[in-house]
Amino acid sequence: MTMKDFSVTFLGISAAIPAKNRNLSAQVVHYAGNVFLIDCGEGTQMQLKHYKIKTGKINHIFISHLHGDHFYGLIGLISTFHLMGRSAGLHIYGPEPLESVIRLQLDVSKTELRYPLFFHTVDPDRQSVVYEDHFMEVRSLPMIHRIPCTGFYFIEKPLNRRINLSAAAYHDVPVKAFESIKLGKDFVKDDGTVIANSVLTQEPAPARSYALCADTLYHEPVAQLIKGCDLMFHEATFMKDMENVAAEKMHSTAEQAAKIAVAAEAGQLVLGHFSARYENLLPLLEEATAVFSNSFLAEEGHTVMIKSGVKNS
Amino acid sequence: MTMKDFSVTFLGISAAIPAKNRNLSAQVVHYAGNVFLIDCGEGTQMQLKHYKIKTGKINHIFISHLHGDHFYGLIGLISTFHLMGRSAGLHIYGPEPLESVIRLQLDVSKTELRYPLFFHTVDPDRQSVVYEDHFMEVRSLPMIHRIPCTGFYFIEKPLNRRINLSAAAYHDVPVKAFESIKLGKDFVKDDGTVIANSVLTQEPAPARSYALCADTLYHEPVAQLIKGCDLMFHEATFMKDMENVAAEKMHSTAEQAAKIAVAAEAGQLVLGHFSARYENLLPLLEEATAVFSNSFLAEEGHTVMIKSGVKNS
Repeated sequence: MTMKDFSVTFLGISAAIPAKNRNLSAQVVHYAGNVFLIDCGEGTQMQLKHYKIKTGKINHIFISHLHGDHFYGLIGLISTFHLMGRSAGLHIYGPEPLESVIRLQLDVSKTELRYPLFFHTVDPDRQSVVYEDHFMEVRSLPMIHRIPCTGFYFIEKPLNRRINLSAAAYHDVPVKAFESIKLGKDFVKDDGTVIANSVLTQEPAPARSYALCADTLYHEPVAQLIKGCDLMFHEATFMKDMENVAAEKMHSTAEQAAKIAVAAEAGQLVLGHFSARYENLLPLLEEATAVFSNSFLAEEGHTVMIKSGVKNS
Repeated sequence: MTMKDFSVTFLGISAAIPAKNRNLSAQVVHYAGNVFLIDCGEGTQMQLKHYKIKTGKINHIFISHLHGDHFYGLIGLISTFHLMGRSAGLHIYGPEPLESVIRLQLDVSKTELRYPLFFHTVDPDRQSVVYEDHFMEVRSLPMIHRIPCTGFYFIEKPLNRRINLSAAAYHDVPVKAFESIKLGKDFVKDDGTVIANSVLTQEPAPARSYALCADTLYHEPVAQLIKGCDLMFHEATFMKDMENVAAEKMHSTAEQAAKIAVAAEAGQLVLGHFSARYENLLPLLEEATAVFSNSFLAEEGHTVMIKSGVKNS
């Protein structure tokens, strides 16, 4: 198995209401040609179009919670998929009432979708695997917010060992044997000679992970659930001088986001979900970097590669 | 009564799905400082912000029908009004199920609005007065579409006669008498002399009107309901070569829109609600002007004054 593309593109980084040049919550995780959409604020379909995201590759949509800035764009995207002639099923993961909201809106417009829609209820109270394929699993992350809310943790599955091609050539190993060697097996020649796996392979690349902490009160225990993640997104609605307001509204400050990154021993921290009151976001970044130096600001249209082995200095 | 501002600004002119540089249906009618919003496709709150429309002046929103491209932005606008601290009541006029769609979305986000929301059901089957104030009335216009749909007809009330100031000065008429003279009364001096109203006044400016025909099959009888309107908006989803598709989807072509304008003896015709398949809209305009010369294309952000006395040539 070669290293797959694994990255995230931010489409909307504004909290609650759209700000100047900042749209409502949405981001896409790319993994090996698949596109996973997480949250879908109003205008997300326009942002997907604007940034030329391949919407035909979106088969799974994750909704953190039912505040409007995180899902009011979902019904429009579902409708546009229908009007564009989509036939592939679409899976939606989120809080239980989401299905009734979507179905009602399809009903009143007398829309019978051309493609099947599958709703998967995410339990907001415990961490669980909500999606899984050959290469990746997605776990829910319970958040502490005014209404039930979860983050999502994308974890690459352990990768296969890597073939050492020159060693394989030297020992005359046929390519058809590579698959089992990658899984850790020794190679046995026709004459019975055993070539040890350790001779033929190298350690696999470390599996990578992306933890997306959605709207939440500062709550350090979440760090234990995402320990060692390579990239962590955390909401940073407010600055430190509004810590009381953040607590009251069950949001976090940029500094609190950084504290979670420290506790989680994350590789990098990306901040998002900024209050529209901040025109200049650099002061929020400064507050975070003072605590966790590998912090940066999410930027709309910007794609961040998820890399293993980045350590906070 | 002096002449009030009366104009319309287009915010979204794309049908069904957003097109390059074209947003989903929304327009605002300005009258004497009030702003009436008609339809509210996804992204309308961003368009209102972008074009600096005074959203605090929006107290009445009219929704033609419940296809998503005409109302999926309403819940976001309602939420943003709430988050921005609005206290004034908001009146919404539209099909009956709209209230349940909006209430459900407020419920699932546990939002208790800071301001009252009043829903007014519009009967899609007959023309009726849905809104009225001192200066203006708004009538519904039954459309023929796949689901219940109405247009809206904004009609200025008959204006008062205009004082001839030099005649008033000559006859020594005090200003406090002007109001009753404007209403058509004669002026009686203290010595009993009667100055006829016709001496003191001029004919009022003609009342103006704007007829907004929403999504509809070509249906000529609607022209009788808006006879003599000064400006008429009509959907023009398709070109003539797609007349069959238009009929099947219960939409109109640009040429059909122009035929309605002729039958209605409208002053001017503005075309909108264009299929995303047309990158260049000029061919649609050509098809319309061949039938009705005072035709033009709606442009996003563009404001059109509603003038009386414009005649199609």
